[in-house]
Amino acid sequence: MDNIGIDFLSELCGTAMLVLLGTGVVANVALAKNKGFNGGFLMVNIGWGIAVFSGVVVAYNSGAHLNPAVTLGLWANGAKAFGSAAAHTLVPVNFVTIILYILAQLIGAIIGAVLTFLAYKKHFDEEPDPGSKLGVFSTGPAIRSYGWNLVTEIIGTFVLVFVVIAFGHQPGAAAGLAALGALPVALLVIGIGASLGGPTGYAINPARDLGPRIAHAFLPIKGKGSSDWSYSWVPVVGPILGGVIAGVVATWLLPILTK
Amino acid sequence: MDNIGIDFLSELCGTAMLVLLGTGVVANVALAKNKGFNGGFLMVNIGWGIAVFSGVVVAYNSGAHLNPAVTLGLWANGAKAFGSAAAHTLVPVNFVTIILYILAQLIGAIIGAVLTFLAYKKHFDEEPDPGSKLGVFSTGPAIRSYGWNLVTEIIGTFVLVFVVIAFGHQPGAAAGLAALGALPVALLVIGIGASLGGPTGYAINPARDLGPRIAHAFLPIKGKGSSDWSYSWVPVVGPILGGVIAGVVATWLLPILTK
Amino acid sequence: MDNIGIDFLSELCGTAMLVLLGTGVVANVALAKNKGFNGGFLMVNIGWGIAVFSGVVVAYNSGAHLNPAVTLGLWANGAKAFGSAAAHTLVPVNFVTIILYILAQLIGAIIGAVLTFLAYKKHFDEEPDPGSKLGVFSTGPAIRSYGWNLVTEIIGTFVLVFVVIAFGHQPGAAAGLAALGALPVALLVIGIGASLGGPTGYAINPARDLGPRIAHAFLPIKGKGSSDWSYSWVPVVGPILGGVIAGVVATWLLPILTK
Amino acid sequence: MDNIGIDFLSELCGTAMLVLLGTGVVANVALAKNKGFNGGFLMVNIGWGIAVFSGVVVAYNSGAHLNPAVTLGLWANGAKAFGSAAAHTLVPVNFVTIILYILAQLIGAIIGAVLTFLAYKKHFDEEPDPGSKLGVFSTGPAIRSYGWNLVTEIIGTFVLVFVVIAFGHQPGAAAGLAALGALPVALLVIGIGASLGGPTGYAINPARDLGPRIAHAFLPIKGKGSSDWSYSWVPVVGPILGGVIAGVVATWLLPILTK
Repeated sequence: MDNIGIDFLSELCGTAMLVLLGTGVVANVALAKNKGFNGGFLMVNIGWGIAVFSGVVVAYNSGAHLNPAVTLGLWANGAKAFGSAAAHTLVPVNFVTIILYILAQLIGAIIGAVLTFLAYKKHFDEEPDPGSKLGVFSTGPAIRSYGWNLVTEIIGTFVLVFVVIAFGHQPGAAAGLAALGALPVALLVIGIGASLGGPTGYAINPARDLGPRIAHAFLPIKGKGSSDWSYSWVPVVGPILGGVIAGVVATWLLPILTK
Repeated sequence: MDNIGIDFLSELCGTAMLVLLGTGVVANVALAKNKGFNGGFLMVNIGWGIAVFSGVVVAYNSGAHLNPAVTLGLWANGAKAFGSAAAHTLVPVNFVTIILYILAQLIGAIIGAVLTFLAYKKHFDEEPDPGSKLGVFSTGPAIRSYGWNLVTEIIGTFVLVFVVIAFGHQPGAAAGLAALGALPVALLVIGIGASLGGPTGYAINPARDLGPRIAHAFLPIKGKGSSDWSYSWVPVVGPILGGVIAGVVATWLLPILTK
Repeated sequence: MDNIGIDFLSELCGTAMLVLLGTGVVANVALAKNKGFNGGFLMVNIGWGIAVFSGVVVAYNSGAHLNPAVTLGLWANGAKAFGSAAAHTLVPVNFVTIILYILAQLIGAIIGAVLTFLAYKKHFDEEPDPGSKLGVFSTGPAIRSYGWNLVTEIIGTFVLVFVVIAFGHQPGAAAGLAALGALPVALLVIGIGASLGGPTGYAINPARDLGPRIAHAFLPIKGKGSSDWSYSWVPVVGPILGGVIAGVVATWLLPILTK
Repeated sequence: MDNIGIDFLSELCGTAMLVLLGTGVVANVALAKNKGFNGGFLMVNIGWGIAVFSGVVVAYNSGAHLNPAVTLGLWANGAKAFGSAAAHTLVPVNFVTIILYILAQLIGAIIGAVLTFLAYKKHFDEEPDPGSKLGVFSTGPAIRSYGWNLVTEIIGTFVLVFVVIAFGHQPGAAAGLAALGALPVALLVIGIGASLGGPTGYAINPARDLGPRIAHAFLPIKGKGSSDWSYSWVPVVGPILGGVIAGVVATWLLPILTK
């Protein structure tokens, strides 16, 4: 298989793993009769953090973006290649590779959401609230206000992409990534969830939100309600803006702040 | 002692440690009057994660499967040897060694459950609900539906075995395992519990479920109820299927996704 | 840019990151209608721990003090230079560099608090309790008693600065810092919060408390109350005393206790 | 200072740090009006885990036992020297050095408890329940039954000492300890607390229990009740038995199980 095929499959599988475990923890906490029902927001944060950890472990060869905001943030940061130098899977950054990365992430996210639906099938059947069902798949605002919701998503994704790029500026980053590379980003995602997830449920990833929303629309979920398409642009546009801004700011700021 | 004897004892002790700490956290949360009573599902997830961590630390020489689904998953993945090359305890993978690994895990799990019974003896005496008592030992479904419960266990165990095999595909995995090798699998188990443990309580390990169920059947637990044998095949068959599928899929997929 | 400029910007941005994520988790837990509302004190501790983690990752070049108590503690410990030898950003420790570090931290803290205000804008609007609003920005005592509150802050900051200096006395500290350098301090901050944060909310950092309090005073927060300036000296003086005492004690004690 | 003096001071300070943060988290959760009041058992577990982490960081030169059960367990395991080879602080294991290690731990534990009393002074004043006050200092059984309480403490301490000795049997343990050496034991203590802490509150350390109990007896705590000396032998004898058994068992078992 050529490199772009490897990277495509790697992004797809990594994002499927991420979204399976990520939407899974929401299902556990939000759907009635689950053993983790009402388990608390910290449990959701930790679940998403380890979801990212697991996805990154799986998607080594593509560089484990798993998120269009990261892909576009790295492009805005001036990356010349995606993938892994160590694994000899580098591809040049251009319009085609960016689109393929994002497409892989979106397809992976849909697959992950379908798997969560299967794992929690009976709980979807018995949950009476359509809002809780949609909440497993996609984010929604605590207080609906498109402008401010967008601000929250931009700030959260800025932190994600800026700090992820900063990880690469630590001395010994390569050694660190070899040993426990996925741990720092897992911690970061737990932290963003705990600290900036209150108002919008922290999509901070367009594929993570749009993919499962598409799955929600086509899956035969008993008693499901609206897929809330009117809000759906916020967790797509916000993270893209936040990621691109982070990439641009990191271009000139991180070489000053870090090694 | 010859290698298979070393590996047998290593698996047995590691699984005893795993099940002692794993069933222990459930006892703490589920049995009345405990200081951790009603401590929450996240606490249970973290307890099981560190249980795996401790078991892996103890069972270095056998490769620390501690789980028939891992043993069978590695076989399905084409492993030629079990044990540790570094410790010179390798044994060939064949029918006999597979059976011995699984037997050691099952005996270890029974011992671990007996130790938990002893550690929580007075709380078993004073707990009125027989269901809570069984719940310390073995998993049970939140909504009984053998087919869907099986699906949930298959998906959960697939994630476990697939990502565990993926750990070995990270560059520098050897170095990482030397330094903090048991940490990634602990995180993974916390995540699977939080994300996929809602419907069935995540056995994801036939020995972990069957061993304590046998202990529940023979131990003199005051006021105990049924050992629920009618459900007992689900957390055996589901994890075995999930592990073997993960091993097979990993054979062709992981070399593409990871280094 | 010369070294002191680099270090100034590095401290400023790192502290902004720290305070954004730190005050953010309090906003999530304290302001009505948030998804993390009433998420518990442990979630707050973990949020602050990862806030420090993220700030340290960003502020590599300045040595990531992010806290006047750390800056003054290192001075009291006899440090000859601030910054990073590896990044060639060392500056001599003198009155001017100390003042510039503290100024950068204070400005960064104000910026971080403003970003949290923006991320949680609608929740500030809808929260009825002015006390909860101030609590997002600055600490306040559970039982007001300036003397004992001061004691608590001194002890908490002593632990922070003493153990941070002890990190540098571990063998292989340099290698550890290269790989996962920010993790130990994140754990330490989680622990100080859990263990010593009960009475005063653990400022343990004058900039973290005073910066957001200034932001609270000038920001157009709907229905805000007093900025409680009468208490504001405690989380400034206590941490400075604790940090300086830790630095002095560490000068003679840590060479005995650690390598 | 000669080696035994260095090791004495190192154990004393490390145990003081351990007990300050450990009893601190109980104070936060148990004493009225604290910000962490009713924060949950998991928070207590995590607080004690990071307390051990911080104590180990501080007490590098003595080998960071911080616990007579560890000291006696290492003796039973056949250790020839205590202290640190890397720091050139080794002392031979004999009656005198064992007594000095234990004495240092006990004095350190008393100092740590006094510091917690100071940090939480006003909350001790305002807490009406004498049982909650004692509970900050020392452990007590959920169901009083000296025999079974002893069993629980033996099992818990066996796990602690056995796995701690097993850490030293991991390949690359030295490298791991250099980088993040205190993290595995912190995880282990969190796990023992969550999994085996329900019935007795997991002393698993005679100094941790007896030292603060002595402090409780002599400190001028407003409205304090009994120091419950009738139970006090259990968290001393149980951990010593558990530690010594672990040391003996590890002598022949760990060389088989681990490298």
